Amino acid sequence: MKLNDTIVALATPSGAGAIAVIRVSGPQAIEIVAPLFKAKSKKLLEEQATHTIHLGNIMDGERTLDEVLVSVFRAPKSYTGEETIEISCHGSPFIQQEIIQLMIRKGCRSAEAGEFTLRAFLNAKMDLSQAEAVADLINSENAASHQMAMQQMRGGFSNEIQKLREELLNFASLIELELDFAEEDVEFANRDQFRELVARIQTVLKRLIDSFATGNVLKNGIPVAIVGEPNVGKSTLLNSLLNEERAIVSDIAGTTRDTIEDEMSIGGVGFRFIDTAGIRETKDVVESIGIKKTFEKIGQAQVVVYLVDSSQIAVNRERMQEVRIEIEKIKNKFPQKPLLIIANKTDRLAPEEVDILKAKLEDISSHAERAEFLLLSAKTNSGVEELKLRLLEFVNTGALRNSDTIVTNSRHYAALLKALEEINKVEDGLNADLSGDLLAIDIRQALHHFGEITGEITNDDLLGNIFANFCIGK
Amino acid sequence: MKLNDTIVALATPSGAGAIAVIRVSGPQAIEIVAPLFKAKSKKLLEEQATHTIHLGNIMDGERTLDEVLVSVFRAPKSYTGEETIEISCHGSPFIQQEIIQLMIRKGCRSAEAGEFTLRAFLNAKMDLSQAEAVADLINSENAASHQMAMQQMRGGFSNEIQKLREELLNFASLIELELDFAEEDVEFANRDQFRELVARIQTVLKRLIDSFATGNVLKNGIPVAIVGEPNVGKSTLLNSLLNEERAIVSDIAGTTRDTIEDEMSIGGVGFRFIDTAGIRETKDVVESIGIKKTFEKIGQAQVVVYLVDSSQIAVNRERMQEVRIEIEKIKNKFPQKPLLIIANKTDRLAPEEVDILKAKLEDISSHAERAEFLLLSAKTNSGVEELKLRLLEFVNTGALRNSDTIVTNSRHYAALLKALEEINKVEDGLNADLSGDLLAIDIRQALHHFGEITGEITNDDLLGNIFANFCIGK
Repeated sequence: MKLNDTIVALATPSGAGAIAVIRVSGPQAIEIVAPLFKAKSKKLLEEQATHTIHLGNIMDGERTLDEVLVSVFRAPKSYTGEETIEISCHGSPFIQQEIIQLMIRKGCRSAEAGEFTLRAFLNAKMDLSQAEAVADLINSENAASHQMAMQQMRGGFSNEIQKLREELLNFASLIELELDFAEEDVEFANRDQFRELVARIQTVLKRLIDSFATGNVLKNGIPVAIVGEPNVGKSTLLNSLLNEERAIVSDIAGTTRDTIEDEMSIGGVGFRFIDTAGIRETKDVVESIGIKKTFEKIGQAQVVVYLVDSSQIAVNRERMQEVRIEIEKIKNKFPQKPLLIIANKTDRLAPEEVDILKAKLEDISSHAERAEFLLLSAKTNSGVEELKLRLLEFVNTGALRNSDTIVTNSRHYAALLKALEEINKVEDGLNADLSGDLLAIDIRQALHHFGEITGEITNDDLLGNIFANFCIGK
Repeated sequence: MKLNDTIVALATPSGAGAIAVIRVSGPQAIEIVAPLFKAKSKKLLEEQATHTIHLGNIMDGERTLDEVLVSVFRAPKSYTGEETIEISCHGSPFIQQEIIQLMIRKGCRSAEAGEFTLRAFLNAKMDLSQAEAVADLINSENAASHQMAMQQMRGGFSNEIQKLREELLNFASLIELELDFAEEDVEFANRDQFRELVARIQTVLKRLIDSFATGNVLKNGIPVAIVGEPNVGKSTLLNSLLNEERAIVSDIAGTTRDTIEDEMSIGGVGFRFIDTAGIRETKDVVESIGIKKTFEKIGQAQVVVYLVDSSQIAVNRERMQEVRIEIEKIKNKFPQKPLLIIANKTDRLAPEEVDILKAKLEDISSHAERAEFLLLSAKTNSGVEELKLRLLEFVNTGALRNSDTIVTNSRHYAALLKALEEINKVEDGLNADLSGDLLAIDIRQALHHFGEITGEITNDDLLGNIFANFCIGK
């Protein structure tokens, strides 16, 4: 990993916009840019203080490429920790390209994906888990994933791991010191204190490992299976959920959002709605394949929404009986999976019919574990707000609300699992009064896995893998 | 046009990137952002000097939205001339939106398209033609359009117009002063000097008006009609022209360019290649419609490229005769349009065949006005470099090379035409010894049209039209 060259890349999204930012970082950043920059003030860029901005022209010989603002960041007070120049130019792809080409001709190298952040890591501006959080932050699409990435970027659990690692390292050294005095049979490492530390580490690791399930689901969106016949109002329901969120977004001119049909953010948490074909009993082979698929999708979901048309079941005893049987089937297969029965189209019912329907659904849900019901009209929006609250309740967002550390990265998860495994071995060793040299091996292994998370232990392949997922310019 | 509010918009292209820049401008820019910004240095944003950058967090109450860099620009030393804050945040669309929403909740208004530049104009940071050049600059796709936009942005011909306008205004005042002393029959305005000024203005206006043809074509790309049968190698030719340019582009990782099939930049000038069906004689009705269309396209083109397969015509006397006839037809219809006969696939010929072909084409082109020929092999790239030089020669790029002012904007063109009309009337009036009051009317009209270009004379509709073509955030 050579850091003695100077890299350049476009830091803003490609395409035309009002402005674009080109980032230059490395030991020669200022030396390379300064001769190409003609400041309006005539002052030399080399003499400018860190964190200052200068108006002028980028010149390719006699040719003016653009009028730009140049920001100066002096090492180590920059993102990468190196000398850094940011050029804010007009947002024409042609101009961006001309300036980047000029920089390359004058000695810069085109930056690899994530290389600015990689340099920040290598220059100890952040640890590896913080660097990884930068990519998560850029990709965050809702409040939950944003909050988790922010937390991780600001230290998150890596500070905690770091502290435990140091304590453990201390014990490891003492135990290894004992080995040098093996003949004297001394104990530098207090075994009771060590046992206490091991227990503490186990608690922390278990908590973090447990948080991964929540973190993973929050990061990727909570899968919700919608079970329901055609025409019970699935898409109207999704639209009424979506529209309300959309209204907030469309307040801001210029912020357009790609339509993601079945993914949406509710109360800042991402949900993925999985449409199913329903599980209505049939003799048709094709349809029974549909039922099998529905059950598969329910299996993958975190929450099941069972959607029915109120106007059909309120007055039709037979249909109501079918609903009861279908719910029993789902509950037999997935007793622990939260189930929400939604009776849609309540706008079509008379008040007394609503009461009857309520009583029936209460009866059904009281006989099933983790089942609730909700009367709703997607058309009039009545009950939609309540549905959002219920969906959020189903999800374990407690940790999120309490700002507890949540592990979202599967690489961290794997390292935590391995660290716990080794720590458990250390515990067993302590209990079995294992000799110091054997104990030391397991401790070293645990330390290794701790180090993997924060980046103390690393190798080029690992770094290559991590930073390849970044965009260029970051 | 109220300027007492503070506007906010994303200034970088939408979508995910390493960073994004949010621009806030207006009297309350610093007041609004300061309470939302927790600087790492703990210093107050309100107390920071202009053109300085500060690291910290954007806070929505207790919630950290992002770690950002905040740039401070104090009025009038900013792009808009107003107090301005630029927030450089992580490039997640979610974060961008959250920060913009926060700013709006705290009192900013979402900026209209081009509103930052409109404010720069209204605050006299630039004149109208310079403001218009900003949009051209952002949209510039090749060196020619870029250079023209740069020139216009840096003053261009508006300085020249501005100076002439002042001189003319001076004479207008003197002539109007004469009216007050009509009974005394004095002449404050020296008629000879005035005649000289009018002549000078006419020269400048004519030069600028003439430059529009070049400017327009350079801005929009030079249309080149390619006339040729199928399989003579049209697409191979275009690809070999394009590939060489592509090679330069692909040197820079991360700068991807949309494929524009028939548009490319050659030597910094944009060319638009228009494919035609050829004009081979036929009795087929459908094909003769094709021939009519080919002639239409030739009419719209600046240059005609007549492409033939060398291996077909070198040995086939009959086919060669057809070529001769077709070229005569084109030249009869468009005698002044430059025509380049390209004999492609020369790699298939023996050396002696090349000599024969050359002699025949020399004969054909010598009998037609403004016709040249070129032997080429798109497959082996031989002659492609020569083709580029020829294409550039056909175009009047002299003005571009000499950095003469070129008018590219049709609004300016229209105003210049009208100004010239009025100045011609003034000249006529002078020659006819017209009375001062009548002369003054035409001078005022000419002044009006001058003012339209630079924006001294303006109205809300005009400004609305101009800035509506900008992107939001500029």
